[in-house]
Amino acid sequence: MGCRVAVVGGTGVVGEEMLNVLRDRKFPLDELRVFASPKSAGRKVKCGKKQATVEEIRDGSFKGVQIALLAVDKELAKKIAPKAAAEGAVVIDNSSSFRMDKDVPLVVPEINPRKAFDHKGIIANPNCSTAIMLMAVYPVYKLAGVRRIVAATYQAVSGAGRKAMDELPAQLAEVMKGGKPKPEAFPHRIAFNIIPRIGSFDSAGYTTEEVKMQNETRKIIGDPRIKVTTTCVRIPVMRAHSIAANIETEKKVTAEQVREALASAPGVDLEPLKDVYPMPLDASGKYNVLVGRIREDASQENGIDLFVSGDQLLKGAALNAVQIAELLVQEGLHG
Amino acid sequence: MGCRVAVVGGTGVVGEEMLNVLRDRKFPLDELRVFASPKSAGRKVKCGKKQATVEEIRDGSFKGVQIALLAVDKELAKKIAPKAAAEGAVVIDNSSSFRMDKDVPLVVPEINPRKAFDHKGIIANPNCSTAIMLMAVYPVYKLAGVRRIVAATYQAVSGAGRKAMDELPAQLAEVMKGGKPKPEAFPHRIAFNIIPRIGSFDSAGYTTEEVKMQNETRKIIGDPRIKVTTTCVRIPVMRAHSIAANIETEKKVTAEQVREALASAPGVDLEPLKDVYPMPLDASGKYNVLVGRIREDASQENGIDLFVSGDQLLKGAALNAVQIAELLVQEGLHG
Repeated sequence: MGCRVAVVGGTGVVGEEMLNVLRDRKFPLDELRVFASPKSAGRKVKCGKKQATVEEIRDGSFKGVQIALLAVDKELAKKIAPKAAAEGAVVIDNSSSFRMDKDVPLVVPEINPRKAFDHKGIIANPNCSTAIMLMAVYPVYKLAGVRRIVAATYQAVSGAGRKAMDELPAQLAEVMKGGKPKPEAFPHRIAFNIIPRIGSFDSAGYTTEEVKMQNETRKIIGDPRIKVTTTCVRIPVMRAHSIAANIETEKKVTAEQVREALASAPGVDLEPLKDVYPMPLDASGKYNVLVGRIREDASQENGIDLFVSGDQLLKGAALNAVQIAELLVQEGLHG
Repeated sequence: MGCRVAVVGGTGVVGEEMLNVLRDRKFPLDELRVFASPKSAGRKVKCGKKQATVEEIRDGSFKGVQIALLAVDKELAKKIAPKAAAEGAVVIDNSSSFRMDKDVPLVVPEINPRKAFDHKGIIANPNCSTAIMLMAVYPVYKLAGVRRIVAATYQAVSGAGRKAMDELPAQLAEVMKGGKPKPEAFPHRIAFNIIPRIGSFDSAGYTTEEVKMQNETRKIIGDPRIKVTTTCVRIPVMRAHSIAANIETEKKVTAEQVREALASAPGVDLEPLKDVYPMPLDASGKYNVLVGRIREDASQENGIDLFVSGDQLLKGAALNAVQIAELLVQEGLHG
């Protein structure tokens, strides 16, 4: 008994990873449909033994689809998600469009799996940096409570899509030949540079990416009292986001207690020794996020510093979405 | 009336910048001597109109030298600095060897210039990330007091010397051809990667670089109550370090008040608009550090978040050392 699944945006960076994850995790597919923009329509896409021909979305496209995984930009998601839900699919949307809607659950299966069942047709997949950070923070929350988080991110270019992934090596090659590449995918050159701005600015001076991390943290953990401040920075790395997180806990805990909690946390690979630490190169392609550099904060009584690297196309996007779909299937949605 | 100056380690990355800065700032040189390892001895080095032949250090080398700028590693500095001081020079040492000695002033001229005159032959130049961070933090300290700093760094490879500067582009070229370069200057590959470890680990899990930022902040500002925690990360950028700093102030201040304080702070270029932000590419080669992304911290009552980029070979090393020398000259040391 399988499930009829559609991947929307299936030829994009995240959509392709969704197909890979469905295949690798042997997701029970009865039928696979893949939607993308007209220019990709007609292309053949494989997912294990299932093959699909890329289609454009039309009225009625989602009739008979049980789960629709959306990997499109937020404007497109705003149009497609309600339509797919109205045609009977449960939508798992990777965009930011619905995440903070009170009727839409925002789910990380290792943290708040039961929320997935409160949906009214749409379930939101969290922001990539948020999901990766919370894989390390939530075990600390369960252990000792979390009052406040100060986080700085180191975000890979693949978070900005395929054009950005092409731009970094092209710019590097040009700079190393003495050229001065014009930025296209990013507002500034990313080769040998970092850009402390992801998204647009609000009136308080935070970026949309930073505000997502703040609000989504509270919603996913389900504790509106958690205070969060973030600085999000794009760096010249291809894949996997990293986060330096400083955590003020409610109860005092030792680094050893935190290490123990993380050693048994699902989806986490705890770096076993202090001489081994999370790096994007090691996190790329992995389902689990890497957590390390765990130390008692020298600057406050109840504090822990740690460092996380995670593949933002996997745990930060495609993997998390497929995990949500798996939850639904386990509960018999496919019946 | 000029001054007799020696640059020790004058053929290294920081030593060369010291010579550049002496020339560019028209430092009053009566005599220039340049010391380096035996393999560089005999080489000619220019500094404006002054020329020097690179010498090995021998007994008596520093006789007649008034100011010795040291740009050597900490083990070598431990031997050379006391020797040069005993032979009559005032040593301005860029290494970490003497920074926390209570008899050695640790000076950032924009912050604690008078401390330079308390020396007993040796003055220490601060850690690069610390100097750059404090250029932004000290104006906030003067405005509102600082209780606690949580900082994450984005540090360029040139902070690790010439071998590291050669390694990054070489590794990038090799990776882009499909190769797997072996790391040499760093413990791991730095191309398309980041390394959350600079220096060695202490028993608490902090690195030496992180501990320097914590201790040196208190000593330079002269306030032992300031709490600091840091995460130091090497990134694949050639030059200029960046720091995301979260600052808990004693008094509540607005972002606008902080912007005003930084606009008039010496050595700081305040990014004029929130759409412009500090980046290493823009900070490279500049004497002033770039400060931006100033915002009121969403996570605490009295907090400010900001972002700094500064050329760590200049304000973080050579420029700061020459500025200290200038202070000494202004006070008539050259007499």
